[in-house]
Amino acid sequence: MKAPPMKLLRRLKLLIAVSFSFGLVSFAPLAVADQPETRPKIIFFDVNETLLDLDAMKSSVSEALEGREDLMALWFSTMLHHSLVDTSTGQYHSFGDIGVAALMMVAENNNIEITPEAAKSAIATPLTSLPPHPDVIGGLQRLKAAGYTIVSLTNSSNAGVKAQFEFAGLTPYFDQRLSIEDIEIYKPNLAAYDWALKKMNVEPHDAMLVAAHGWDIAGAKAANMQAVFVARPGKALYPLAKEPDFIVNGIDELADKLIK
Amino acid sequence: MKAPPMKLLRRLKLLIAVSFSFGLVSFAPLAVADQPETRPKIIFFDVNETLLDLDAMKSSVSEALEGREDLMALWFSTMLHHSLVDTSTGQYHSFGDIGVAALMMVAENNNIEITPEAAKSAIATPLTSLPPHPDVIGGLQRLKAAGYTIVSLTNSSNAGVKAQFEFAGLTPYFDQRLSIEDIEIYKPNLAAYDWALKKMNVEPHDAMLVAAHGWDIAGAKAANMQAVFVARPGKALYPLAKEPDFIVNGIDELADKLIK
Repeated sequence: MKAPPMKLLRRLKLLIAVSFSFGLVSFAPLAVADQPETRPKIIFFDVNETLLDLDAMKSSVSEALEGREDLMALWFSTMLHHSLVDTSTGQYHSFGDIGVAALMMVAENNNIEITPEAAKSAIATPLTSLPPHPDVIGGLQRLKAAGYTIVSLTNSSNAGVKAQFEFAGLTPYFDQRLSIEDIEIYKPNLAAYDWALKKMNVEPHDAMLVAAHGWDIAGAKAANMQAVFVARPGKALYPLAKEPDFIVNGIDELADKLIK
Repeated sequence: MKAPPMKLLRRLKLLIAVSFSFGLVSFAPLAVADQPETRPKIIFFDVNETLLDLDAMKSSVSEALEGREDLMALWFSTMLHHSLVDTSTGQYHSFGDIGVAALMMVAENNNIEITPEAAKSAIATPLTSLPPHPDVIGGLQRLKAAGYTIVSLTNSSNAGVKAQFEFAGLTPYFDQRLSIEDIEIYKPNLAAYDWALKKMNVEPHDAMLVAAHGWDIAGAKAANMQAVFVARPGKALYPLAKEPDFIVNGIDELADKLIK
């Protein structure tokens, strides 16, 4: 068994401390295992940050924000928040449009002048030309060769993820691409996972979601799926949600676990 | 008519430009008016940032984050995002607990060591000892004297808002305090507004929500309520949501509009 990174061990230790000290959550024995109990019939992959490296956008976004590279994380958080604001209020706009709106809000809140044209060009082109993380292609190749059915499940639009996969060279590894655009309900709303499961005709416990976002893990576990957290740098789990089934540092490590 | 601040005018101009240039949203003539069409029977007030000054937490939160005052906005955005992650996945934790979890996530994502004890003490005490914005007490006094029914509607817990109001001296001005804790569904989920309207036995168009958050305006308008945006510094509207009925710079200005 590969040891999980120290940072995660520290986080889990803190979680236990939180549970005891403040009664924030009911303490449950650590459920993180080494490998899945049941071989999944379908592996769903989140896309942005899980497979593709969003850091490549840092220069364009920070350039639009007068060099404020530190605002990149706030922009992405604001975009995610407002995707759920849309779903919570019965609205829908594409993830790209919410990204532009979020960038304009972050700019205004920080007294930065930005035109919508600048906001759009800072996001649109870079978002569809993100490179895959270095562990991704090798890992997908091996999972595919081992016979796994591989499906993407993303908040990006259908056209967006098609362009992303073509640029990143990921198209051949996926049996299907699913976008929440088809139902206009953003992850982690449970309806998004339920829809994907029905679409692929698979029971929750036979399906696995792989994601670098704690909120996506929270959603998949609440939908009774298996869930694997990819511990990308700067991506913490949500301490109040159910634990993932296991944690990996990359897709190559996921292949190690799933191919025996 | 008092002119809206230049920043907002600029934003609205940008919104129109966005609508035309990119088809991001369907363009609608600017609906922001000077005063309400119908005198509201009940005025609902959001609490944090709308009435109370969250800036007072900056020193304690930034101290917990090794002096990184720039992470305050990311912490608050992460807290708001994860309140909706909870609601979207059928979970519930108190706003305070989500705040502690968000602070731990922001710390971990920025390689800052923080104990849960430090995260909790950075938030818990300051959150219940926030001062009101300087325009708040005078505005509430006049609205109350003019016979308006005044109700708070907040994501904070019942105990939390009780303590917040006692510290800030707001208790006497409110006919009722409502917390989404009673239904365990966070704003801006439409169920939160619907619940509040039923609870106060008022029709949506007879009720007005006053908030300094674009996402709260989005929710109230989607619930068919009147909505007034309080343009606090660093608080932009969500450009893709319905416009508020009107915009004020403070609660004193709200009283000007509602008392003739």
